[in-house]
Amino acid sequence: MEDTRRLEGLSDGVFAIVITLLILEVRVIRVPLGETFERDLIAALIDQGPSYLAFLASFATVGIMWMNSRRLFNLIARADNTLLILNLLLLLAVTVFPFPTALVAEHIGHPGERVAAVLYSGMGVVLAVFFNALWRYAAWKNRLLREDADPVLVRTISSSYIFGPLVYLITVALAFVNVPASLLVTIALAIVFALPSDNFLVRLFH
Amino acid sequence: MEDTRRLEGLSDGVFAIVITLLILEVRVIRVPLGETFERDLIAALIDQGPSYLAFLASFATVGIMWMNSRRLFNLIARADNTLLILNLLLLLAVTVFPFPTALVAEHIGHPGERVAAVLYSGMGVVLAVFFNALWRYAAWKNRLLREDADPVLVRTISSSYIFGPLVYLITVALAFVNVPASLLVTIALAIVFALPSDNFLVRLFH
Amino acid sequence: MEDTRRLEGLSDGVFAIVITLLILEVRVIRVPLGETFERDLIAALIDQGPSYLAFLASFATVGIMWMNSRRLFNLIARADNTLLILNLLLLLAVTVFPFPTALVAEHIGHPGERVAAVLYSGMGVVLAVFFNALWRYAAWKNRLLREDADPVLVRTISSSYIFGPLVYLITVALAFVNVPASLLVTIALAIVFALPSDNFLVRLFH
Amino acid sequence: MEDTRRLEGLSDGVFAIVITLLILEVRVIRVPLGETFERDLIAALIDQGPSYLAFLASFATVGIMWMNSRRLFNLIARADNTLLILNLLLLLAVTVFPFPTALVAEHIGHPGERVAAVLYSGMGVVLAVFFNALWRYAAWKNRLLREDADPVLVRTISSSYIFGPLVYLITVALAFVNVPASLLVTIALAIVFALPSDNFLVRLFH
Repeated sequence: MEDTRRLEGLSDGVFAIVITLLILEVRVIRVPLGETFERDLIAALIDQGPSYLAFLASFATVGIMWMNSRRLFNLIARADNTLLILNLLLLLAVTVFPFPTALVAEHIGHPGERVAAVLYSGMGVVLAVFFNALWRYAAWKNRLLREDADPVLVRTISSSYIFGPLVYLITVALAFVNVPASLLVTIALAIVFALPSDNFLVRLFH
Repeated sequence: MEDTRRLEGLSDGVFAIVITLLILEVRVIRVPLGETFERDLIAALIDQGPSYLAFLASFATVGIMWMNSRRLFNLIARADNTLLILNLLLLLAVTVFPFPTALVAEHIGHPGERVAAVLYSGMGVVLAVFFNALWRYAAWKNRLLREDADPVLVRTISSSYIFGPLVYLITVALAFVNVPASLLVTIALAIVFALPSDNFLVRLFH
Repeated sequence: MEDTRRLEGLSDGVFAIVITLLILEVRVIRVPLGETFERDLIAALIDQGPSYLAFLASFATVGIMWMNSRRLFNLIARADNTLLILNLLLLLAVTVFPFPTALVAEHIGHPGERVAAVLYSGMGVVLAVFFNALWRYAAWKNRLLREDADPVLVRTISSSYIFGPLVYLITVALAFVNVPASLLVTIALAIVFALPSDNFLVRLFH
Repeated sequence: MEDTRRLEGLSDGVFAIVITLLILEVRVIRVPLGETFERDLIAALIDQGPSYLAFLASFATVGIMWMNSRRLFNLIARADNTLLILNLLLLLAVTVFPFPTALVAEHIGHPGERVAAVLYSGMGVVLAVFFNALWRYAAWKNRLLREDADPVLVRTISSSYIFGPLVYLITVALAFVNVPASLLVTIALAIVFALPSDNFLVRLFH
């Protein structure tokens, strides 16, 4: 039973690298060099519009996952071997996340968009399941929580996290029917999970 | 209401990665390998002169942003959800920053230089606005500041930060008229913001 | 004689970068872009199956090495010059590790698989030797350990670490006879070392 | 006058990234894929021998620079604006360092080796000067040192650091005469600076 200092250090490192590498994808592949005329440069930059949107969406999602990680570990005081492994699984999903994001950004509006959207929403399910596993393991009978952890806040997180995997499963189903609708719901969910645990939408579920 | 430890850990990680990747751009793309004669190698290295300058300017700017981040969080004691989001927005701009920098380095002296300079100075406006948002949110009625934060220092930062977005807007306007002048003012501003809050230039504005 | 704070900071940074770069190899090289038909995209993704497995195995191994590093430094309180150098040697092996892993992933089932497997298992020997050197140096007569370090736990780690290099040497020998068997034993060993020091398998050796 | 926590966090991040990226250069450029026969794979790996040596030398040098940074900041308790800038200059040289190293690794034994060796040893001068500037600024009249800093240790570092820039200047001169001798002296110097401040060689200078 030891503290969570290095676990949080490793996590912050991984989040920092993932969030910084996102822009590299946009830049390395498509920086418009050697355009001869000013108008050509502007056109080249505008052409990259969809990449910028994919970048912003990814940045928001990774940022939100970091905020969730921080929120949970503000309540978790101790780490045992199982928690380390559950957190590594979560980091695994975090490092993989830009992969389906890039697939969506590349294929939206093209033949492969349904495959991409299913993988992207499926990743949402995986992330929600891993966040649930981490939190439920730590919070079960206050196993690893701080002694002064607010019991109302703990219960609020526990009950709001139930809906995560379920709602993401719906977005997977939606992806088979309507890709843009599925992506919009996925983004809306990310925003809901970023808001404080006692926000209006979470209260609505109670 | 929790401490700023992980927020600063994530920020330091992002700054460390951005500041380290700057040199990779210069190296990966243009390391002169396989030159047959010594004179050719020297010529190849000298040819890269402008890249080195762009690298040094970027390094200085990212370093200055880190110093500003550190200065503010030495005064900020607590983080709420809004501060986390404002800091993520700031980090977003930090990770994006090398993009317009590379555009300027590539297009200076060529047809696209005006577009590049406008984007570069525009990025300065964005960064100044995000730094302002972060600081003003935290400092408003001492909301998130340390109890022992020096009120004179807090007021000095608040008033000197007002000028940031305004002066960067002027460099955007300048970029339409004279690109080198605009870039010089932008670099001069970075240096001014790096100096201690109570430096001569800041005092001049009072 | 100073604390281990920065040593652990550097180590967490290196582990975070190595664990995050693993997925980049899979992505950068083989992201299927520009597939014209949905079926083609699915086929392209399935084709990458072996890369995913290699990625997962690498992620698990790096994660386990991090867990071991954390376990040891929870018991080590002080760092002297020699410990810094031993830890740098360990980090050297950690940053190199993805290299033989990529070789195995690329050559498994092809002519070069024996060379790759020997290098991969040999890397296991090197890592086990470096972990032993670090631990034995710190634990010798409790040289650098915390005063309240549990002596039973210290002895358990010391005796279980003896077997590491020996068993990895066996996997090197196995690689000359049967490559898949050698790789399976290597992965099984990684899992054993991830389990808590007082687990069933370790007890078996006593 | 504030503590050095974030300064050390940024430094550890930069050192971790630089030390991890070194192996990427060897791998990304030269991983032997698609070799058809086992013998070809072995030959391809052996062909890369010089890269491995360059990698090991770079790893040792970056590791030693980190050990020096850690040694100094174990004695430095506070950071002011000037110290931040001096440390950023040092980090600048650290991120640039793999550049001349790669030049040397690529050109040794070929026509450009003298240019490469002069740049490499010149980088040693720059690093030694920056380490001196950082340390002398902090140690001047104990300006930023811990109150309990051992005065003998402080004086030993101050006097041993004097020789750094001077000896590296000699290696620059040597590079014009005999490239391998210059490189050997540079590597020997790195090892001397890695040893504890009270080692035999340093004592020899007193």
